[in-house]
Amino acid sequence: VPPPTGERAERRPASAVDEDVLTARLRARLGSAPDGELWSGDDAAVLRPPAGSLLVTTDMLVEGVDFESAWASPADVGWKSIAVNASDIAAMGGAPRHAVTAVGLGTSTPGALVDGLADGMIEAATTYAVALVGGDLSRAPRLTVAVAMTGEVDAGGAVPRSGARPGDALCVTGSLGGAAGGLVALRRHGAGPDLGPPLARLAQRQLRPRARVAEGRALRSAGASAMIDLSDGLAVDLARLVAASGVGCEVDVAALPLDDDLQALGSGPEADPIRLAVVGGEDFELLCALAPELLGDACARVEECGTALTQIGEVTRGGARLGGVDLDEWRERGWDHLRAP
Amino acid sequence: VPPPTGERAERRPASAVDEDVLTARLRARLGSAPDGELWSGDDAAVLRPPAGSLLVTTDMLVEGVDFESAWASPADVGWKSIAVNASDIAAMGGAPRHAVTAVGLGTSTPGALVDGLADGMIEAATTYAVALVGGDLSRAPRLTVAVAMTGEVDAGGAVPRSGARPGDALCVTGSLGGAAGGLVALRRHGAGPDLGPPLARLAQRQLRPRARVAEGRALRSAGASAMIDLSDGLAVDLARLVAASGVGCEVDVAALPLDDDLQALGSGPEADPIRLAVVGGEDFELLCALAPELLGDACARVEECGTALTQIGEVTRGGARLGGVDLDEWRERGWDHLRAP
Repeated sequence: VPPPTGERAERRPASAVDEDVLTARLRARLGSAPDGELWSGDDAAVLRPPAGSLLVTTDMLVEGVDFESAWASPADVGWKSIAVNASDIAAMGGAPRHAVTAVGLGTSTPGALVDGLADGMIEAATTYAVALVGGDLSRAPRLTVAVAMTGEVDAGGAVPRSGARPGDALCVTGSLGGAAGGLVALRRHGAGPDLGPPLARLAQRQLRPRARVAEGRALRSAGASAMIDLSDGLAVDLARLVAASGVGCEVDVAALPLDDDLQALGSGPEADPIRLAVVGGEDFELLCALAPELLGDACARVEECGTALTQIGEVTRGGARLGGVDLDEWRERGWDHLRAP
Repeated sequence: VPPPTGERAERRPASAVDEDVLTARLRARLGSAPDGELWSGDDAAVLRPPAGSLLVTTDMLVEGVDFESAWASPADVGWKSIAVNASDIAAMGGAPRHAVTAVGLGTSTPGALVDGLADGMIEAATTYAVALVGGDLSRAPRLTVAVAMTGEVDAGGAVPRSGARPGDALCVTGSLGGAAGGLVALRRHGAGPDLGPPLARLAQRQLRPRARVAEGRALRSAGASAMIDLSDGLAVDLARLVAASGVGCEVDVAALPLDDDLQALGSGPEADPIRLAVVGGEDFELLCALAPELLGDACARVEECGTALTQIGEVTRGGARLGGVDLDEWRERGWDHLRAP
């Protein structure tokens, strides 16, 4: 069955387009498998195994929960679905390899949405060197995109959450608060051309998060003892890291690398840069612990990726505090509160 | 944070239960990772790579589309989410290895639902020797379960859809129509105790599909040239196999191994056993092509798994027909029509 083309096809709802036709249309846009591999078009993808350890992760994005169609374009959603999984692989110090996608589409989904979704996925997959090797299309009440990604890391070389030791430096890549600030900007102004450059940059941090893949590999090489990506906010993810490691922490609020563009949000309790940085979530920066004597080398390696590495505190024997306040207390002001409609 | 226990916890909506608490509760029920592996609880699972080829597949189940909560228990949904993915691995002739699950829960989801879902997933994972190694919990308007599964097959040994050659015998494992017949029975009578044994068995075929993992490996060893699992109905999946192989087929309707229990459905156009077998879908039997001289050995190997293998027709040079009717015509009476609410 040849894929439908032209205007008529674009206006047809996805449900009226045969699953095989849509799949074929998407498949034609993906790369081809190397010899000995078999990608989309069979019951499962057939892949060469990695030489080191195999990494596997999954994340699902649901319309109205993880994104709003009012401001996130289909391409934004496609990008984010790949980037958030690549971020999980990055947080282990690994390199992404392959992704499979399960997409649920409403019955009135236009074909253009499917193409936009594919645009964003392909753009992110190209950026992070991930091959899109298969998927599943079905119906859902709201657009739902579940991606599972494989990655690779030298055997024994994955950086877990659980390796932090008292005395380690706690560091983050890049800057914090931008993604949550972007959400504030989008809620206030929408995604239109009214956003000036600083707010538009914040919106991009929300809509097009970057996975710190090169930085994660650099931090693994530099000897990071523990690592996690900041998906649910520093307070929540730092609590996870110290709990998994059985340690405590003391973070200096003044040391947090706040996103410069947050100034443009002006005042209002929802625009407080520290709150956005600590409980906002979705920055997808890496938080790591590493022995203090490794810090200089680690900073240099991360800078080679074009990204800053900032020490924000240190690992202690017990008591998890940020600015002298218990992380549990910060957590209660966390992601869910900010995200609630 | 200790997991909540007792009645109070059970009545709390899942959204009121911290994601980490739920995750910890589920994790406590899973097996532990062998030395050198890291399962749930980090950003990604860390696994030993397979010796042969790596298989990866994904399938998503959505409430109201792929199952109805009126008759499918949470454990049924959990079982099916694993079984349908294991079936994809089986259709390559592979062995399932690991699964990651992305689950979207409504805000009013009781904790008991999450436990039931885990019950079914763990039961299926045990049956098919799959390790549940990680996942992602989020909110969704309807219960949504996306599973991605890895598998393993000897390098170069995966059985694709595309290898069928003119003259090959076309065979199916087990019996056909039972799962769609079960849907008819459930729609007529619900899932209650009113279902007599034959209808209850049909309902089980719908609610608890079996993945033909051992049979798939036996057929690979026996030299099957092409294979696919029957998820969308014989007409649809056979059309996929012959299209991928660039061949045709002639299937004898009288040779179809109809599920014996379909007799118990009585009359009515929706209860016609042949229609259920050809366009019903979700039987998750395997359809394969193999050279006629291999047929005897293949039957013997599949019988060792406790399952019949039945020749239903043969591969031709062109023209895809079933009972003298073009597959396209059968497809138009297919799965979507039957499944439409």
